[in-house]
Amino acid sequence: MPHPLDSFFAPASIALIGASRDHEKIPGRLLAMLRKNEYPGKIYPVNPNYAEIDGLACYKSIADVGAPVDLAVIIIPARAVLPALEQCASAGVKNAVIISSGFAEEGGDSAAMQDAIAALAKRTGIRISGPNAEGFFSQVQRVAATFSPAVDVKPDVVPLIATTRRIGIVAQSGGIGFAYYHRAKALGIAVSYVVSAGNESDLGAGEFLDYMVQDSSTDVILLFIEGIRDVGKFLAAARRAAEAKKPVIVTKVGRSSAGMRAAASHTASMAGWSAAYDAVFARFGFIVSNDLDEALTIAAVLASNPLPKGDRVAVVTVSGGAGIWGADAVALRGLQVPELSESIQAGIATLMPSYGSARNPIDVTAQGVTSGGLQKSVDLLTVSDEVDAILVVLSLSSDVRMPFKEPELKPVLAAQHKPVVFYSYTLPSEFARRELAKSGVVVLSGLTHVGVAMRQLVDYAGFRLPKLADETRLPARDLSAHLTSPVLSEADSKALLRAAGIALPDEVLAKDKSGLDEAIARTGFPLVMKIQSPDIAHKSEVGGVRVNITTKGEVFLAFETLLNNARQHRPEADIQGVLVGPMAKRGVEIIVGTMTDETFGPMVMVGLGGITTELFRDVVYRPAPVSAEEARAMLAALKAAPLLNGFRGAVKTDVAALAQLIADISVLAARHASEIAEIELNPVLVHAEGQGVTIVDALVAGRG
Amino acid sequence: MPHPLDSFFAPASIALIGASRDHEKIPGRLLAMLRKNEYPGKIYPVNPNYAEIDGLACYKSIADVGAPVDLAVIIIPARAVLPALEQCASAGVKNAVIISSGFAEEGGDSAAMQDAIAALAKRTGIRISGPNAEGFFSQVQRVAATFSPAVDVKPDVVPLIATTRRIGIVAQSGGIGFAYYHRAKALGIAVSYVVSAGNESDLGAGEFLDYMVQDSSTDVILLFIEGIRDVGKFLAAARRAAEAKKPVIVTKVGRSSAGMRAAASHTASMAGWSAAYDAVFARFGFIVSNDLDEALTIAAVLASNPLPKGDRVAVVTVSGGAGIWGADAVALRGLQVPELSESIQAGIATLMPSYGSARNPIDVTAQGVTSGGLQKSVDLLTVSDEVDAILVVLSLSSDVRMPFKEPELKPVLAAQHKPVVFYSYTLPSEFARRELAKSGVVVLSGLTHVGVAMRQLVDYAGFRLPKLADETRLPARDLSAHLTSPVLSEADSKALLRAAGIALPDEVLAKDKSGLDEAIARTGFPLVMKIQSPDIAHKSEVGGVRVNITTKGEVFLAFETLLNNARQHRPEADIQGVLVGPMAKRGVEIIVGTMTDETFGPMVMVGLGGITTELFRDVVYRPAPVSAEEARAMLAALKAAPLLNGFRGAVKTDVAALAQLIADISVLAARHASEIAEIELNPVLVHAEGQGVTIVDALVAGRG
Repeated sequence: MPHPLDSFFAPASIALIGASRDHEKIPGRLLAMLRKNEYPGKIYPVNPNYAEIDGLACYKSIADVGAPVDLAVIIIPARAVLPALEQCASAGVKNAVIISSGFAEEGGDSAAMQDAIAALAKRTGIRISGPNAEGFFSQVQRVAATFSPAVDVKPDVVPLIATTRRIGIVAQSGGIGFAYYHRAKALGIAVSYVVSAGNESDLGAGEFLDYMVQDSSTDVILLFIEGIRDVGKFLAAARRAAEAKKPVIVTKVGRSSAGMRAAASHTASMAGWSAAYDAVFARFGFIVSNDLDEALTIAAVLASNPLPKGDRVAVVTVSGGAGIWGADAVALRGLQVPELSESIQAGIATLMPSYGSARNPIDVTAQGVTSGGLQKSVDLLTVSDEVDAILVVLSLSSDVRMPFKEPELKPVLAAQHKPVVFYSYTLPSEFARRELAKSGVVVLSGLTHVGVAMRQLVDYAGFRLPKLADETRLPARDLSAHLTSPVLSEADSKALLRAAGIALPDEVLAKDKSGLDEAIARTGFPLVMKIQSPDIAHKSEVGGVRVNITTKGEVFLAFETLLNNARQHRPEADIQGVLVGPMAKRGVEIIVGTMTDETFGPMVMVGLGGITTELFRDVVYRPAPVSAEEARAMLAALKAAPLLNGFRGAVKTDVAALAQLIADISVLAARHASEIAEIELNPVLVHAEGQGVTIVDALVAGRG
Repeated sequence: MPHPLDSFFAPASIALIGASRDHEKIPGRLLAMLRKNEYPGKIYPVNPNYAEIDGLACYKSIADVGAPVDLAVIIIPARAVLPALEQCASAGVKNAVIISSGFAEEGGDSAAMQDAIAALAKRTGIRISGPNAEGFFSQVQRVAATFSPAVDVKPDVVPLIATTRRIGIVAQSGGIGFAYYHRAKALGIAVSYVVSAGNESDLGAGEFLDYMVQDSSTDVILLFIEGIRDVGKFLAAARRAAEAKKPVIVTKVGRSSAGMRAAASHTASMAGWSAAYDAVFARFGFIVSNDLDEALTIAAVLASNPLPKGDRVAVVTVSGGAGIWGADAVALRGLQVPELSESIQAGIATLMPSYGSARNPIDVTAQGVTSGGLQKSVDLLTVSDEVDAILVVLSLSSDVRMPFKEPELKPVLAAQHKPVVFYSYTLPSEFARRELAKSGVVVLSGLTHVGVAMRQLVDYAGFRLPKLADETRLPARDLSAHLTSPVLSEADSKALLRAAGIALPDEVLAKDKSGLDEAIARTGFPLVMKIQSPDIAHKSEVGGVRVNITTKGEVFLAFETLLNNARQHRPEADIQGVLVGPMAKRGVEIIVGTMTDETFGPMVMVGLGGITTELFRDVVYRPAPVSAEEARAMLAALKAAPLLNGFRGAVKTDVAALAQLIADISVLAARHASEIAEIELNPVLVHAEGQGVTIVDALVAGRG
């Protein structure tokens, strides 16, 4: 199916605006790179100072080319860019990449020039990447529209290619995007495209991601993000990736305050709140990695292996110590390393010395290479139903010796029964990389990264895109009458929630003592009394809460005390009265909330209640709305999840009811995103299975 | 100062028992390696089948050599090893390395042969490394007593050496030990020794560690452990390393159950309980790393830099995206990346384009390399008191271009003002490695490892060996009369603790109702009553606890109920009575305990009480005994530490009293290690500052 960016990524003709003869400088390098990589289309250098460059006719302006141009690559001083783009648009150029810097990243007038570029794209329909971009590279189409040294072609080097599947790289930093490519080449990972996004005046990472998702030559996507600007396109592309089960490995930087400060001054992008990014990544099953080598290791494993059917790993090694380390590397990431059956052990044991071990890790010893134990282990394990993946741990430093023979290894791996991952504890030699590449093997050299990659592979294999939220459960209601002040009191917050269709205990707001009798009658004993004021967020801190009240006398006394305490601590507070409600049944304390992220909008969160949540940062976020199914996945992701599931002999709690509440609150927050900034239910008590949940306290903040 | 192992690591003469002409096999390779590495001493091949090997006279037996032999390297079939060793001992050979396999790792008769080797060493005084070892390599003395291909000398390769300081490698796995060396060579880290320990019949990792600690040619130690056997020597060497402030980077494998299983079958070593290992490492300031590249990155940084004076890092980069990532990498590990002063910013800003940034990260952009901003940044920052370390993030993939000039960079780094760490996001070229090595730079290529290394450097710089425990605080007492059953009841446990000098609330064990009046008189109201039986570990589970009792009537009723509940739930239990004690003041719930590790003996632990401890595994161990100072360090290492220090407006607790209790309990456990297996104080309530702690419940288990 054609894609609007086909003419961008596979242009039939390229104009090089600002072309130069000086190969030492960036403009000259662009032309050299295009030609060295054997770009098959037409190239039109544009520069009023030359009639010819390197044997190609050079044009005074784009208007002079007089032939269709799919892509203009622009590398001229910042102030000249806009006029050049106007000419491109007039000449019918379809796409442009602006390499030049000095726009939004400088602020002021320069930022205004970028706004004008964006407006021009919108007005004329020309699609523009950059400014401040490093361009892109298409391995498939042989388009090197970049000055990155990473795409330089060395005549004496035969490319190393170990994978049949290809990775596509989308990076908001050209430096990093092409660093991925540079390292991927060394590992033998085939690459379809590398594209750097720069300042994203028009084309952004979201749209590039979309291209990679639909592109049939891209099997795995590597994404490097500072901050997403084309949010809608990004989210749509992410959903399509999840639906197509095309893995996306994402790195999001700007997670620390120093990193965010740097992002702001770099491509003028807002790094944003990384928890919101992680929530979006989690929804779409993106594989998050914060390390370059780790991300490439995951990509390498995905590009050369099928997905595993389970989490049981066999570790095969020639060195005892390295085998123990290999077992640790996967087991400490939660994968199983089961002891193997007698029959498998017997099948291997005869092919290695008596001081080896066939249990798992299988240590065939150095002797086992020549005596056949190593290959036999891989043979038996690839077809065994005792394990779901194999980690081969060995030394591949030799320049002349190989522990595997291609005719034996290649067919076993080509059958793609299960992942077989190769790690060398010595630094792998180029010889070993090239020999094993013939069998489709990427040799990996970072053991922790390998352990993480195998775990990520198992998780990704088990990922299912969660159901969409059920928007029909909560009736659509006009809540504007409830949103009279920026922060609502507990009573007002609960009134809003009730109006929205959320179930809450029956409570009475007593404005004066005359209301207390009715409150007691409706509530019954034991009961709870809480001072109500939009100006008092933390009621306990002002002595504004009394619990477990069992007599009428106590009720009247408490009313007096609560009002006095409030007046004493907060003389200026607007007091609404005292909220009287029943004591809740016991349950596990949970906090449920919503908030608004500046990039992705409404978010829903859940965490264990109490101070330990804060101490251990055990909270999980998702973009709102979520379905009850996705809410259950959120709960399962909490470190404190066991507390809900009958930890240490406690009763199992009503996780279904809690999940439904999270879903309902998330629908409410998403639907009223323009009015409601924040909802906090803290605590929610989760009772025993079948006995539901109780919202004990609630706070709603409007956007006003 | 001479060391007993000098003649082992720097032998004046080597006999090769089992020497061979076949360079393809291990015995032949040993001789070749020795000669290729230009061993300067005498070599005596021993093999009854040859008169000469490779131009060297070959001897029928060690007895025929007729000259002093410092080291015998033995590579003959397992059954022949013991007789050969006997001959060596008779001939006055000082040391032996047994490469041969087939001993303890096979079990049965083969294990018995190893025992005989150990006995021979003890009897004759010959020092023996192995069997099942890969030998050792001394770069300094040019002794390649190993068949590892990692020490092979390629005639056309000039060694890459970037560091003036050297690392010494001690590994219980030869495969891993020489893999460290192989990778260290590629990075340009100078190495003093690599020694593999094998089965450690006589010489063990502890003794080798001791050698490296006192060795003046070794500045940083890399240690790979499966399980320590020579515990006393290891602990003594560890203490000496801490006292000499010589950094030890340690990897301990066999941390997962699969890894432990593998360790057991590998070198027949017990991997042991890794928490105990980590406790020992923490005491001596060892830097723990579970990844090979990470460990080498830490070693590289230590071998080429001074220790930092604080935790403030400047990130200098040529790529915006990479700079953000660099800032994240250090900031997310808890280091500061402070914004720089106006004056520093001004000093750099003129040397880079307007779209760069001098704030920190400092992005001088690609232009900043040629315009001087990069070098100027390093110049200014190395002498600035605004930062304590510098991370330079750049692309070093070029085979021809260098971003730094040696005459400019070398003197700045040679001054060793502060750590300057170089990371390349593209794969560094050999050219760049060699060029920068001239200035003393090890180019690193894993950013997460770099972040970890810089954090470890800061932590190591701040480490001080804690004071020894104060053994005089607790009087020496005979506690044997208290240890009448394997598990003591709470009352008996507390009686033992009181006898040992630990302060506890006054409590009364009421055996029948007649004792209750006295108990009330001694305790006062409110009080707590708990059933007592050595057979009932979890009193709450049998309805055996009543708290907050305020009247005499309740006391008598509770006594009845507690006994009835116990009889009903545990009819067979031996009931001692009911323990009556005062209700404790409120406090933060802490658990303090001791246990016995099979490798390191008594351990003391502390954790936050309640179920969250278990959920978040927030406990800290140290070998017992500890001083109060070390106990405070334990408390500071808890994730829950803020709860003790006035988290969220709560009062600060009596950390000093808690630390003293931990110290006292640890002294008690260590002193009575032969009688007491375990002490558990759970909970200990820590009251407000100055108000002490209360041991609420206690359990002591004897070793009987």
